[in-house]
Amino acid sequence: MVGKNVVRACIRDMQAYIPGDAAEDAAVVKLNQNENRYPPSPRAVKAIESALAGVAIYPESTSRTLREAAATVYDVPVDHVIAGNGSDDILRILFHCCCNPGDVAVAFHPTYSYYATLAAMHDVRYRLIDFEGEYRLPDSLNLDDAKLVFLPNPNAPTGTVFPEAEIRRLLQAVPNGLVVVDEAYADFCAVTAMPLLREFDNLVIVRTFSKSYSLAGLRVGLGFARPELLAELEKVRDFYNVDRLAQAGAEAALLDQDWLRYIAGKVAATRDATITALRELGLTVYDSGANFVLVRFPSAARAREIYEGLRSRNVLVRYFDTRGIDDCLRVSIGTDTDMDVFKKELEALLE
Amino acid sequence: MVGKNVVRACIRDMQAYIPGDAAEDAAVVKLNQNENRYPPSPRAVKAIESALAGVAIYPESTSRTLREAAATVYDVPVDHVIAGNGSDDILRILFHCCCNPGDVAVAFHPTYSYYATLAAMHDVRYRLIDFEGEYRLPDSLNLDDAKLVFLPNPNAPTGTVFPEAEIRRLLQAVPNGLVVVDEAYADFCAVTAMPLLREFDNLVIVRTFSKSYSLAGLRVGLGFARPELLAELEKVRDFYNVDRLAQAGAEAALLDQDWLRYIAGKVAATRDATITALRELGLTVYDSGANFVLVRFPSAARAREIYEGLRSRNVLVRYFDTRGIDDCLRVSIGTDTDMDVFKKELEALLE
Repeated sequence: MVGKNVVRACIRDMQAYIPGDAAEDAAVVKLNQNENRYPPSPRAVKAIESALAGVAIYPESTSRTLREAAATVYDVPVDHVIAGNGSDDILRILFHCCCNPGDVAVAFHPTYSYYATLAAMHDVRYRLIDFEGEYRLPDSLNLDDAKLVFLPNPNAPTGTVFPEAEIRRLLQAVPNGLVVVDEAYADFCAVTAMPLLREFDNLVIVRTFSKSYSLAGLRVGLGFARPELLAELEKVRDFYNVDRLAQAGAEAALLDQDWLRYIAGKVAATRDATITALRELGLTVYDSGANFVLVRFPSAARAREIYEGLRSRNVLVRYFDTRGIDDCLRVSIGTDTDMDVFKKELEALLE
Repeated sequence: MVGKNVVRACIRDMQAYIPGDAAEDAAVVKLNQNENRYPPSPRAVKAIESALAGVAIYPESTSRTLREAAATVYDVPVDHVIAGNGSDDILRILFHCCCNPGDVAVAFHPTYSYYATLAAMHDVRYRLIDFEGEYRLPDSLNLDDAKLVFLPNPNAPTGTVFPEAEIRRLLQAVPNGLVVVDEAYADFCAVTAMPLLREFDNLVIVRTFSKSYSLAGLRVGLGFARPELLAELEKVRDFYNVDRLAQAGAEAALLDQDWLRYIAGKVAATRDATITALRELGLTVYDSGANFVLVRFPSAARAREIYEGLRSRNVLVRYFDTRGIDDCLRVSIGTDTDMDVFKKELEALLE
């Protein structure tokens, strides 16, 4: 039995990451993976259709025109941009590029759980530091030993928005490693660390097309950092990591900022209305800058019961069996119609 | 200057892989990346167009229906199949999953040069063993220390086809590691190690949709191995590595085996005619089971001169500045019209 025995101990010992349920049933109101329930820019769809004519030919290896569009939209030089097969690809490249076995990665609990999987995958010691109170960064940050420090902004799964001064404080507290600000949800509240790229050489920002741009099915993400770091990340990037249709679709989506603002604005308005409505039901709901809200129930048992009840009524939300939030549900923000169905079914379950 | 200093020594020390020129100019006869100059199955194009409606939603995480189609076509159980963002993704996953720093990977020279890049990326000692004569496996194989052994069949860039008995001999010579048979070009000669999966638990086969299926722009590859090994590879696969359009297109392409046989048959016939024609010009051309041929010139200087001459006449072929083949050009097989242009320009240069 050679097969499995050739596998590294750190991989044999780790658990696979389990993503949220992918529901293919159109009857389901899908509020469990923070996808966008609105369509992408019509220009993105047209660009993908046009790119199909070249599908027999390899993609441009460096996603050049996509990166040029990103440089324009985010007002950074093009050599500050790297493209990935989703932002998860860029997160993986960061681990691969920076972490030897035994190195330390840090995140703040609760956070995006894939960071832990990536750490295990790279034999990296992963330290979760609890937020203080309701999701503030700790006053005292001791991160001298960290190679990589992760902070989603807005945070997942809490929705918390960290102001620029807090990002700056974090960057100053990591003298020997990189701070990765994961801006997957940033378009829903117009926060960004992008201006800090000029000031800090230990800042990496990742962005995705899976949320605000309605292109989760395409797998495109972007990374932003200083060119001397990106030159190293480029070495471990698969040289055709972003396919031809994905490059074309993401580029066109980026260049249609009017559509982005229109859709992100609608989602943000629906989110704020949802928060108000849920609070009126007597539930604890955290302020959110993202396209989801975290709702707390009186107990873990109650949260699981509501999760199962919604599921049986064709409404999918996300439950995490995780310390500190096992009495919560994370609810993605869909269209107003989606949220009306969600609220109606939730009210019926709460009675 | 934290930025670049956080990078691992093995990454800082390595060189980036340089893929062949991506020529976007339609006037160029592109025979340098072994793409297919015929279009993909019309059913694949239709499937991609249909899948566009779901582009806002994450792909199915395990590429289940694509893997089911592969299981049917290749007559293996579905738990013997893994899907990748191109076969390069699967090659990377194998390194990540199996190799600790300092482990040994082996290939036979000359071979696909990305194996060396992947080895460097994973801090793995890479041993290139010369083929014997004109590209036969050595009679004596000492591979006890190898974690991964790579053999493209047909071989790239020589086109050599290894019979099943040779693959079997190689599998028996690797007691402590995996043999990765890279069947990127296997459809052009109907060779495959697939039946050996029942017999050997150290066999991994990789396949791609970039060559025979005319889908290089989509980035889809497949891996085949025993399920106990695949369960480990699955842990390090990005959970949305193959996008929604790519899954749909590749599945439809697989299920149209009539189209595959039609196109692969045309390419193989054009290849054989090209070999005959080039030999009639007095050139040394190796037998090939792939969609390319390796042509030897009297000297490295002459090969480079012909490469540059063809390039200036809008015909792109591949030159490798590599020991043993630096006097060769690798010429992809296009349509008959492509090859007529190539031969006309080559003859003009040879005069």
